Amino acid sequence: MRPSEKTQKRETKGTKRFFEVVFLPDKKKANVEKGLTLLEAADLCDVYVNNLCGGQGVCGKCKVKVRKGSVEGRSKYLSILSKEELQEGFILACQTPVEGDLAVEIPPESRLEGEQILTEGGTVTYSEPAFVERHPQEEAKVPFYSPLTSKVYLKLPPPSLEDNLSDLDRIYRELRRKWDIPVLDVELNVIQGLGRLLRQSDWKVTVTLGRKPQGFRILEVEPGDTSKKNFGVAVDVGTTTVVVQLVNLVSGQVRASYASHNSQIRYGEDVISRMIYACDRAEGLGSLSKAVIDNINDLIQRLVQAERVSLDDVTAVLVAGNTTMTHLLLGLEPCFIRVEPYIPTADIFPVIKAVQAGIQISRNGLLACMPGVSSYVGGDITAGVLASGIDDSAQLSMLIDVGTNGEIVLGNNDWLVCCSASAGPAFEGGGTKCGMRAVEGAIQSVAISDGQVKMSTIGGAKPVGICGSGLIDTIAVLFESGIIDPDGKFDMDQSNPRVRKTDEGVEFVLASADESGTGKDIVITEFDISNLIKSKGAVFAATTVLVRSVGFSFSDIERFFVAGGFGNYLNIKKAITIGLLPDLPMDRFQFIGNSSVAGARIALISNYAFEKAEAVAKKMTYFELSVRPDFMNEFIAALFLPHTDQKLFPTVTGKAK
Amino acid sequence: MRPSEKTQKRETKGTKRFFEVVFLPDKKKANVEKGLTLLEAADLCDVYVNNLCGGQGVCGKCKVKVRKGSVEGRSKYLSILSKEELQEGFILACQTPVEGDLAVEIPPESRLEGEQILTEGGTVTYSEPAFVERHPQEEAKVPFYSPLTSKVYLKLPPPSLEDNLSDLDRIYRELRRKWDIPVLDVELNVIQGLGRLLRQSDWKVTVTLGRKPQGFRILEVEPGDTSKKNFGVAVDVGTTTVVVQLVNLVSGQVRASYASHNSQIRYGEDVISRMIYACDRAEGLGSLSKAVIDNINDLIQRLVQAERVSLDDVTAVLVAGNTTMTHLLLGLEPCFIRVEPYIPTADIFPVIKAVQAGIQISRNGLLACMPGVSSYVGGDITAGVLASGIDDSAQLSMLIDVGTNGEIVLGNNDWLVCCSASAGPAFEGGGTKCGMRAVEGAIQSVAISDGQVKMSTIGGAKPVGICGSGLIDTIAVLFESGIIDPDGKFDMDQSNPRVRKTDEGVEFVLASADESGTGKDIVITEFDISNLIKSKGAVFAATTVLVRSVGFSFSDIERFFVAGGFGNYLNIKKAITIGLLPDLPMDRFQFIGNSSVAGARIALISNYAFEKAEAVAKKMTYFELSVRPDFMNEFIAALFLPHTDQKLFPTVTGKAK
Repeated sequence: MRPSEKTQKRETKGTKRFFEVVFLPDKKKANVEKGLTLLEAADLCDVYVNNLCGGQGVCGKCKVKVRKGSVEGRSKYLSILSKEELQEGFILACQTPVEGDLAVEIPPESRLEGEQILTEGGTVTYSEPAFVERHPQEEAKVPFYSPLTSKVYLKLPPPSLEDNLSDLDRIYRELRRKWDIPVLDVELNVIQGLGRLLRQSDWKVTVTLGRKPQGFRILEVEPGDTSKKNFGVAVDVGTTTVVVQLVNLVSGQVRASYASHNSQIRYGEDVISRMIYACDRAEGLGSLSKAVIDNINDLIQRLVQAERVSLDDVTAVLVAGNTTMTHLLLGLEPCFIRVEPYIPTADIFPVIKAVQAGIQISRNGLLACMPGVSSYVGGDITAGVLASGIDDSAQLSMLIDVGTNGEIVLGNNDWLVCCSASAGPAFEGGGTKCGMRAVEGAIQSVAISDGQVKMSTIGGAKPVGICGSGLIDTIAVLFESGIIDPDGKFDMDQSNPRVRKTDEGVEFVLASADESGTGKDIVITEFDISNLIKSKGAVFAATTVLVRSVGFSFSDIERFFVAGGFGNYLNIKKAITIGLLPDLPMDRFQFIGNSSVAGARIALISNYAFEKAEAVAKKMTYFELSVRPDFMNEFIAALFLPHTDQKLFPTVTGKAK
Repeated sequence: MRPSEKTQKRETKGTKRFFEVVFLPDKKKANVEKGLTLLEAADLCDVYVNNLCGGQGVCGKCKVKVRKGSVEGRSKYLSILSKEELQEGFILACQTPVEGDLAVEIPPESRLEGEQILTEGGTVTYSEPAFVERHPQEEAKVPFYSPLTSKVYLKLPPPSLEDNLSDLDRIYRELRRKWDIPVLDVELNVIQGLGRLLRQSDWKVTVTLGRKPQGFRILEVEPGDTSKKNFGVAVDVGTTTVVVQLVNLVSGQVRASYASHNSQIRYGEDVISRMIYACDRAEGLGSLSKAVIDNINDLIQRLVQAERVSLDDVTAVLVAGNTTMTHLLLGLEPCFIRVEPYIPTADIFPVIKAVQAGIQISRNGLLACMPGVSSYVGGDITAGVLASGIDDSAQLSMLIDVGTNGEIVLGNNDWLVCCSASAGPAFEGGGTKCGMRAVEGAIQSVAISDGQVKMSTIGGAKPVGICGSGLIDTIAVLFESGIIDPDGKFDMDQSNPRVRKTDEGVEFVLASADESGTGKDIVITEFDISNLIKSKGAVFAATTVLVRSVGFSFSDIERFFVAGGFGNYLNIKKAITIGLLPDLPMDRFQFIGNSSVAGARIALISNYAFEKAEAVAKKMTYFELSVRPDFMNEFIAALFLPHTDQKLFPTVTGKAK
């Protein structure tokens, strides 16, 4: 833009305070106040732009092109873009203020596609692991399976001069007499219309009970028999994805599942950047809290509309999330989680009315959160323990949940230990040049056969990027084919046509521009590989230290559960090949997908399980790896493919230990 | 008003929708929408107009004079006024719509003076009965006296990598370790800022705990040591008067007491008319609820301002009221209390956050209500039992609380029975020609000596009317002097100069127009006396039936407590003279005034007492008199002074039984 143009623009538009910004290719429009960034403008009209660093101008993920109108980005941040990108006219959305009407194109690699996938019907479906079985009806006296909320149909004897108990005591008596339910309390708004309701319904009513410590609370009284209409929602609040399940609380069956991106992403991609956003800005915590509550409300609305369930019949929500996600959901400050000695506000959360957190279900419906263990082992892991059943079996079992953090649990029905290692965003598709989350167009598996690269993408679309499972596959096959060496460096002697050198280093072309959905090559760089090796090294080192710290070796582990957001699919063999998982017989492994929502559902429908989760959280011993000197040694030893000590991976290297 | 005038007014003011109404003598102004009644207009500017029938146009208590402007009352209701009143220009405020600017005079007898008394400093003070002693600290493990809410100062050990409990668990642990307090729950808004608060206060905090069944709930965490600043409010919500006490919950001492009229009076004077108002009008319940909540908030505001206490340090409210008053306070429909089989919504009420009922104290402060027994024996009576200590003693004791209903309890530490009889409004100054509540200017005691009438008034003011204790005295002395016979009829043979015959019947002049504060004679009519005899007859009959139904006679009663709103003073001897109380030795009687607020205070400061109140309510057997055939016989026998069976009152009649 030449100075004269700039001046002219300022002169003619100096008095205008709002401008129209159109985002391409969706043509979504926002009316934007002068001075807001393009990233903020996108947010206004629900266009999701990739944004790893939380708008600090350092990750380069939010690059966009201005197609109409002119802008002036802050130049000091432009060094984050490559020469080619600058030549193509890319700018950083987060560093570019709106100062006129604009049309802005968001290239595929800068898009967050979650919302599109959902509206187009291709929802992420959670498949329940086969081994998760419902617990038996452990409370014989209570006539219903024991979910967080239950409905009981009562035929009350009408009052008389001789039997002149109050209306409320009449209900209490019937609950005690017939069902042996000790009721502790009642919601005020329930008794405010009770007299009329009981008489108009001819003393036949359905009482909704909420579980409380040592008893129950009456949450609702409805006319007639509605005891068969009772629903709950199990929620997994992940750092990247929110998954909800509508559960029939009478049968325990899942009616439907939906998922969307966690909209907190607009404030920062990882947990740490969200903590900073929450704690360093006046409205930060409120914005983050509202973002995820809005997600949950949207998903619940879609569930009840699709399933033709009344929102009034949704009486409970049970959320599993890591400690920070649970804090943000409840509006608790997550500010001391990330600084030594890493203390959360709470690990065990009060059961509250959902409306107190802004979640819209029945007026007195409950919200419970899975209890956690520490700042870095949260309710999602407790949920994983419930879902995998580690604590139910005498067999020594391990659970690895790999997200931005790798969380690892080891134990049996007698004891449990756990730890957490920062894996970085690589397994969830972040932090790599063409990485992306497991949504449509993501390369999810890769094979190289006779020099030919074969791949499959989610939804069968043209490849747009590579998700976690695709990255693992890619590195495994590059290593198996000898294209990279155990250090993760390309063997330049091979002169493989797909390997090339650029200004940024060496890279491997998975899909060329004409094959891809972006019109650009999809590549994996030496830098990406190095990053992923660090990630898998951290997880494997943590696993090793944890197993050793309790006096075991990997071969003692009888069952090995792998959970996480790699995608809907994980090739266990390839994960062993790169040294992410230990080299054990394949039949000991099970990929259980989203164990967090499964555990939330189990706790929702079973009081026994919910109380067990608290017991699990209390009995689980957390190992803080940062204070263990052997962790760093193990980490360095694991920075090879599959490992410095090749004897640990006999099936990969052919070298038995 | 001539037709031409009327037309003119309509023409000139037809388009005006709001008019100014000035109420004299206070000159309070209201901007009133056309068509509202003068009674409603008075309500708008907080002018309290007497209104026994709830605005139905049948009691005639709301008579006012229009001094400026013109009105047109509904003529069919004017028959309620006497010929003299009509000639003087009186109209009924409740039947007269506002259709122009007006000045309206409210004569003294139509005023409700409560608010004036308070603002002028002459508050009704509650004097604590000497025998009400605090219970010992029964819970040795809990380091504080056990009020509804308590504050505990904690010095927490700061967290470390080795001691990395969550902030909340750190508080829980300290409460368990040092104080052996089992904490069940915490308010969400308390933990929302907890992390920062703990660190900013260097881990020295004061925790407010609310009593819950089987444990405690954390209501607040404050920096530093504020454990000495903890206040509660005991409230008696009477049908006519609201009394509040500010109680120091650390020492158990009363800091101050205030009282005001129950503003629900504007919707009807007695319990029945308020029930009708609540149940027959769309906004009726809400208006009644708001009226008394406003009273309580006003009184609490005055208390904390006068005592320089922060509202944030008021953490609990404990209310005693009859069943209907408690229902209206909590917004519960009182609609089935008054129809057979007389069932309230609840007798035992949930402990809620005060703000849920609209009461403004600290944000999470609690509101508890005294448990009741039945529709006609409420929390005020349970409070009375606590205050009198009937249930603590092996001595057979009786408590009579005389208000609009006479409530009677008989028993000891082993058993309790109770009943209720409709006494009508006479003892509280209603339903009689010159009756009034026990406020300034009320005649509270009367003596006749050598034909001279001597009297004392509340506040020493010129007499305006007669309150309950004054009525009892008047009838007793008229009977003792032979001016009326045992039937309550005037002996016209005596030609007493104060006895005169009017269109409405015979009456006795207590104070002539020149002596009174109203400029009119203050009289007691034969009709008034007949009413009071019915009232005392109902109470005495109920007392008799209750005593007999458990196999005792009056002489078996060792302690006799009399409570109620007669005034600050009750002449027991005179109450025996008219046959309201049984003829027992004087040393068995004790007038304990407002036992309701005393009981509320005891329950507020003692968990032991509050739990006992629930036990008292549960063990008390309620006798429904309407189904007992002997009640009507006893009632008829009691319609004499002192009684048909003179042997029952040997000290009155000189005839031993």
